[in-house]
Amino acid sequence: MSLKVMVVVGNPKPASRTRKVAELLVSHLLSPGSFELEVLDLADHVDEIFAWPSEKMSALNAKVAESDLVVFASPTYKATYTGLLKAFLDRYPANGLAGVTAIPLHTGADFTHAMGPTFTLSPLLVELGAMVPGRGFYLPLSQMDRLDEVVAAAAAEYRGNLARLATVAAATTDASVPA
Amino acid sequence: MSLKVMVVVGNPKPASRTRKVAELLVSHLLSPGSFELEVLDLADHVDEIFAWPSEKMSALNAKVAESDLVVFASPTYKATYTGLLKAFLDRYPANGLAGVTAIPLHTGADFTHAMGPTFTLSPLLVELGAMVPGRGFYLPLSQMDRLDEVVAAAAAEYRGNLARLATVAAATTDASVPA
Amino acid sequence: MSLKVMVVVGNPKPASRTRKVAELLVSHLLSPGSFELEVLDLADHVDEIFAWPSEKMSALNAKVAESDLVVFASPTYKATYTGLLKAFLDRYPANGLAGVTAIPLHTGADFTHAMGPTFTLSPLLVELGAMVPGRGFYLPLSQMDRLDEVVAAAAAEYRGNLARLATVAAATTDASVPA
Amino acid sequence: MSLKVMVVVGNPKPASRTRKVAELLVSHLLSPGSFELEVLDLADHVDEIFAWPSEKMSALNAKVAESDLVVFASPTYKATYTGLLKAFLDRYPANGLAGVTAIPLHTGADFTHAMGPTFTLSPLLVELGAMVPGRGFYLPLSQMDRLDEVVAAAAAEYRGNLARLATVAAATTDASVPA
Repeated sequence: MSLKVMVVVGNPKPASRTRKVAELLVSHLLSPGSFELEVLDLADHVDEIFAWPSEKMSALNAKVAESDLVVFASPTYKATYTGLLKAFLDRYPANGLAGVTAIPLHTGADFTHAMGPTFTLSPLLVELGAMVPGRGFYLPLSQMDRLDEVVAAAAAEYRGNLARLATVAAATTDASVPA
Repeated sequence: MSLKVMVVVGNPKPASRTRKVAELLVSHLLSPGSFELEVLDLADHVDEIFAWPSEKMSALNAKVAESDLVVFASPTYKATYTGLLKAFLDRYPANGLAGVTAIPLHTGADFTHAMGPTFTLSPLLVELGAMVPGRGFYLPLSQMDRLDEVVAAAAAEYRGNLARLATVAAATTDASVPA
Repeated sequence: MSLKVMVVVGNPKPASRTRKVAELLVSHLLSPGSFELEVLDLADHVDEIFAWPSEKMSALNAKVAESDLVVFASPTYKATYTGLLKAFLDRYPANGLAGVTAIPLHTGADFTHAMGPTFTLSPLLVELGAMVPGRGFYLPLSQMDRLDEVVAAAAAEYRGNLARLATVAAATTDASVPA
Repeated sequence: MSLKVMVVVGNPKPASRTRKVAELLVSHLLSPGSFELEVLDLADHVDEIFAWPSEKMSALNAKVAESDLVVFASPTYKATYTGLLKAFLDRYPANGLAGVTAIPLHTGADFTHAMGPTFTLSPLLVELGAMVPGRGFYLPLSQMDRLDEVVAAAAAEYRGNLARLATVAAATTDASVPA
């Protein structure tokens, strides 16, 4: 069975470096052929992001919510995720990302805002019902020259985390029968 | 194989209600016989919590870090986890909870501080390398009369989340071979 | 001298209850005749909020940054401020609200997200250089029937806080000469 | 009138670098002769920090709460303030720091945790009723060689912020008479 994977990019400018980092993370995280990737570049939808109702936006929200794994990627704006990404997430009802495995990803100038993805974007995604398998991923510009290495290390950590979570999952399976 | 499970209680008063809620959550989450549970009531260790070095504290830190699943339970003090719980976590080096599946749990008077476990304790545990499979669990005093029902619902959500994470984990397994 | 005061409303729907609460807070906080109030309802500007450059948006950003006191008011969306408010704040450069006294205000359904203004909007405004004279103000729908009383109490607390800050300010004035 | 000023140090090791940075900040912030400074090094009180009741601790809590200005200084542990500092703050009832002007200060190894004082310690102090006149102050080890310059710049920013807050305070004074 093929995994449904999405990259959601919150940069108001399209085709950003942030998008490329997120796509690279997916390619390091999953084995070729095991997944279908779609990219949602929110920069392409600024005209309708505040329209309500909007069939187009509802379809995009639904597609993200039905994914198995989503990388939510944003440049760092004022220490945290962009208003554009938040505006997209605001369209969900409570618990709208239930069951989605989510990876928060911020890019930034230097390490000053390295706490952002773990301390600001991650709680937001979790509030919506998503599960985040570890730290948020933060990439400062200063590490662009060894991007592949840094992303590979992060992917290895997520894979290790997921393997450990699967062990715990196995022990909870039978518990679904009420005691 | 039996799962190693711990409850770490950060209430400066021993044998607290917070501890009971955490133990109940474990019993709803896992099937009988599938795990070994140990409880670390930090109230029993206030005398040594700031001692450095301390063989006793190091042994306790190690036992928690070697667990598969840990519920970190704290009453709400000033909107967030207690200083006692933080003092225990402060003893770890960076990444000291790597590989541990952690559930943040706060009890409180009412819903005013319901954001606490997801927005304050969860990022702290993740900073230490733990994985949190969903929201933090918050229990207000006003729900004590239907405790079992509330805890059962939370446990069901964690089980569902873990099952979904296991699906994603399965797709990442083969990716551990470098591309 | 008249104080320049603004209310910035982050609700995508115009003329919201959130706006009324913010205006009421200003009327309780300041004495009549001591200030000029302007309201910026961001719902009126969704079409240009992501346009770059935009003379109209730049003028609005400048007007807010030149104010003495600004109430940043938002309904609670996903436990925190709206993407629309964040999109407006994203347009500032670093330190863009330097010198502005800011009051974070969230409205919400109940007390579940009461930590929002103090733990999420306030740090964001401070990151931009603003000063927040105390807690963020949170108003749940359940208190709308005694709105005036609740807002009056919050205003009294801000006034008390500002008076105390002025005492400290007085002691630092002379220190501006290097020791 | 002389300002009552305190430095509260949350490092479990006494006489730390963190303490020195906090004392230097006070000396840059206030003019000589305008204040009385007392330092509370919590490392000296680890034996009683969890004792309840404790006359000694209550007296220390009261002294801090009666201060005009307090610098709460902590090394960065796990991205945020220490458990020792939190344990001291936990002893207060709700609103226990009402009316206190507070400056959150973290020291750290590098810029990775620079968001800590503004995004974690500041909301905690505000939750207790304190007012924070601007950003939290973060000092990485890498800036120790130009400590005086960095601290002087931070002090100048706080003085500017306090002067602006005093302007707003002046406009709210008359409003204390009900409309």
